[in-house]
Amino acid sequence: MLEELKERVAEANRQLGPSGLVKLTWGNVSEIDRASGIVGIKPSGVDYACLKASDIVLVDLDGNRIEGTLNPSSDTKTHLHLYRSWPDIGGVTHTHSPFATAFSQAGRPLPCLGTTHADHFYGTVPVCRALTSEEVADDYEHNTGVAIVEHFARESIDPMQMPAVLQHYHAPFTWGKSGLDSIHNSIALEMCAQMALSTVQLAPDTAPLPSHLLDKHYLRKHGPGAYYGQGGKAGH
Amino acid sequence: MLEELKERVAEANRQLGPSGLVKLTWGNVSEIDRASGIVGIKPSGVDYACLKASDIVLVDLDGNRIEGTLNPSSDTKTHLHLYRSWPDIGGVTHTHSPFATAFSQAGRPLPCLGTTHADHFYGTVPVCRALTSEEVADDYEHNTGVAIVEHFARESIDPMQMPAVLQHYHAPFTWGKSGLDSIHNSIALEMCAQMALSTVQLAPDTAPLPSHLLDKHYLRKHGPGAYYGQGGKAGH
Amino acid sequence: MLEELKERVAEANRQLGPSGLVKLTWGNVSEIDRASGIVGIKPSGVDYACLKASDIVLVDLDGNRIEGTLNPSSDTKTHLHLYRSWPDIGGVTHTHSPFATAFSQAGRPLPCLGTTHADHFYGTVPVCRALTSEEVADDYEHNTGVAIVEHFARESIDPMQMPAVLQHYHAPFTWGKSGLDSIHNSIALEMCAQMALSTVQLAPDTAPLPSHLLDKHYLRKHGPGAYYGQGGKAGH
Amino acid sequence: MLEELKERVAEANRQLGPSGLVKLTWGNVSEIDRASGIVGIKPSGVDYACLKASDIVLVDLDGNRIEGTLNPSSDTKTHLHLYRSWPDIGGVTHTHSPFATAFSQAGRPLPCLGTTHADHFYGTVPVCRALTSEEVADDYEHNTGVAIVEHFARESIDPMQMPAVLQHYHAPFTWGKSGLDSIHNSIALEMCAQMALSTVQLAPDTAPLPSHLLDKHYLRKHGPGAYYGQGGKAGH
Repeated sequence: MLEELKERVAEANRQLGPSGLVKLTWGNVSEIDRASGIVGIKPSGVDYACLKASDIVLVDLDGNRIEGTLNPSSDTKTHLHLYRSWPDIGGVTHTHSPFATAFSQAGRPLPCLGTTHADHFYGTVPVCRALTSEEVADDYEHNTGVAIVEHFARESIDPMQMPAVLQHYHAPFTWGKSGLDSIHNSIALEMCAQMALSTVQLAPDTAPLPSHLLDKHYLRKHGPGAYYGQGGKAGH
Repeated sequence: MLEELKERVAEANRQLGPSGLVKLTWGNVSEIDRASGIVGIKPSGVDYACLKASDIVLVDLDGNRIEGTLNPSSDTKTHLHLYRSWPDIGGVTHTHSPFATAFSQAGRPLPCLGTTHADHFYGTVPVCRALTSEEVADDYEHNTGVAIVEHFARESIDPMQMPAVLQHYHAPFTWGKSGLDSIHNSIALEMCAQMALSTVQLAPDTAPLPSHLLDKHYLRKHGPGAYYGQGGKAGH
Repeated sequence: MLEELKERVAEANRQLGPSGLVKLTWGNVSEIDRASGIVGIKPSGVDYACLKASDIVLVDLDGNRIEGTLNPSSDTKTHLHLYRSWPDIGGVTHTHSPFATAFSQAGRPLPCLGTTHADHFYGTVPVCRALTSEEVADDYEHNTGVAIVEHFARESIDPMQMPAVLQHYHAPFTWGKSGLDSIHNSIALEMCAQMALSTVQLAPDTAPLPSHLLDKHYLRKHGPGAYYGQGGKAGH
Repeated sequence: MLEELKERVAEANRQLGPSGLVKLTWGNVSEIDRASGIVGIKPSGVDYACLKASDIVLVDLDGNRIEGTLNPSSDTKTHLHLYRSWPDIGGVTHTHSPFATAFSQAGRPLPCLGTTHADHFYGTVPVCRALTSEEVADDYEHNTGVAIVEHFARESIDPMQMPAVLQHYHAPFTWGKSGLDSIHNSIALEMCAQMALSTVQLAPDTAPLPSHLLDKHYLRKHGPGAYYGQGGKAGH
């Protein structure tokens, strides 16, 4: 069942390897079929290069394995909570890409310092707090998703305008319209984090991008009047 | 029409991908046929690897699409203003290459710290101011070109001796005799920006290259008595 | 004899080249067959790309060459002392990977700043002291192994939970269940060192990962209740 | 004539491209046939990937072109002065590799901070002063060689133990037993420069490698009792 979903998820995960965002097996991509509520996700600890559609694990939104013989990614419960909470997202990517992870480890939000950032993220990429001992003992991966969703709700951040988060001490999660779109946001996030580190090394007190430029760049790609690409909201 | 121009522009844009200067579709190259006043430019939001000559969009200097079914790059109006203002340039490249973009985001001109820089850029690469709210609302991409050309005029910078600019909060534009020559200047700019960051990390008060060395290196490649390469002013 | 061991050691060393961890011939991998006490190791100063199983040198734990016409790696005695002292390790890798080597040169232990580190190393990666003049004159490579093993014993560090060391002024050694597993630890170490440098550049006083997160991440991959991967303690 | 020399020089220059040490055409390798006093060198401004033996220019030690229709590298006179002054060197490489060039631009000698450095360079890699206006006007490339040789003589540095120099404001030159050996020294120099920058970022007051370790590492590869590699002084 859902052969196309499995093909797309396998292809998206195969792209992680040559993207430069992951070492070893430190990353995973999933995508959801909203009609059926079924999520395709990478199996845990398997190399990217040789992933086939038949390796992709299908789970429902409660985490029950529907198809596939391999164990799903150990981060599956985090993905599922994002899908349950945010009905407009279609794909999720998790990596330990080095510059975004450095911001996560430093507990430092990633400010919007230029138009590259504004093309993908509408403002500062937030840091989500680390989990408590109790949350870790209870259900670590599920509670990671809970903490992210609560952070966005409490800070009134729209996940469709801010498709990324830096989890403190851990690493980034990104999302998007599809699995592939969520990888594109991971690529953009890593490059923005690299540029931001170099920028603050050159000028520690660099001001964030003025709001009229943030609006222009974000909205020419993502707003109702978007004119970038080949079809209105075609995106990146 | 202009099949060779389209071939050259497609090839130049295909070189952007493996150059390491761009991620996703963050960059574009154009070239002008001065006899006809027709510019070939990358279509917006299309992958580099698979670009064919038939994908290249032809526009006249007023921005009218002459040939091609795809939308031209969203930065087209910036390219056109540079071509209209500077009759000796033949190609323009725009990238968000990370180190040059970091200087742009920091609003910091790129000083000439060594002969690598002097081989391509005759002095400090300038930063052009960001646009105002009014300029953005009026015609963002056109006014970007206007601000660049005004900066060069006001500061009496010869664009043929300084084929690059860092737009504040945004990223670099470079130009050259052809599309390919403008990419070479993008490659040189990125490497000079990387070296400059490392240099100031090693020695924050590093002095710029003495003028007699700047003259020697720039002019042995670009002056009337150039002797680098295989044919006088053959260039890079 | 031991054809499979030689094949695995050749393959592991061939992976060093494209790993990005080594330049020229600055690295070596070995693996031990515990039943026979025979170690297969890279020959000294030979390119990785063309290594064949028949190039692999077999030595016993006293360093006698058992098979092979080439000289074994100049670091062989260090490997052997680790194998003799730590009966549970199956492979050793030595590289001069740049970021881990920078920590070695700075004489600075690599703190655990995030979960990427905790997935592989249970706490701070220690720095082992440099050898004295006498130790160098006596038997440099052997005494390197002695100093590492003594450091772990004196500080009560379990080498199975901390499969890496930074030798002061020199570079890292890693180990693991097999040659390939020891390379994976080298890859993880280098990435953690790169991230740690960027992290302290962003926030010099970054605190180490809280212990409940260190335990969670290390133990979900390595403890008796490990659930990462496809088979309990399958590892990375 | 000298077909093997031309083949080796072409091959050495082709290796520059994928080495990551050069962008565009910023680098060149030469090798000398000491019996005839003929030097093979890269033609100026030609791409590395497509270099053939028939493209290599042969010049004598006075700079007269002996064979080849292309112009030799603009740095030829620098190479020739090194060959004339130092009869034991067999190859010279010049690159603008980014980290070594950053040290050159900062005018900062590269200290020996670890054994990676000591494996190739016997102590601090020196900075040679920039040329004066008069020297530049007189004969820039020749006088570059003169300044390097004078620096080594004045400071009593043996070029066979220190096969590299950083020219202030410019970039590194390295040499070796052959063209290929000189590239290996360029690769080692760049990696040592990268590691040194990271090391001083971690610990600004890092002490140089103790002399007993410098002696051990340099001499186990290069001294009369060398035991690294497969044949005594086989080198790297």
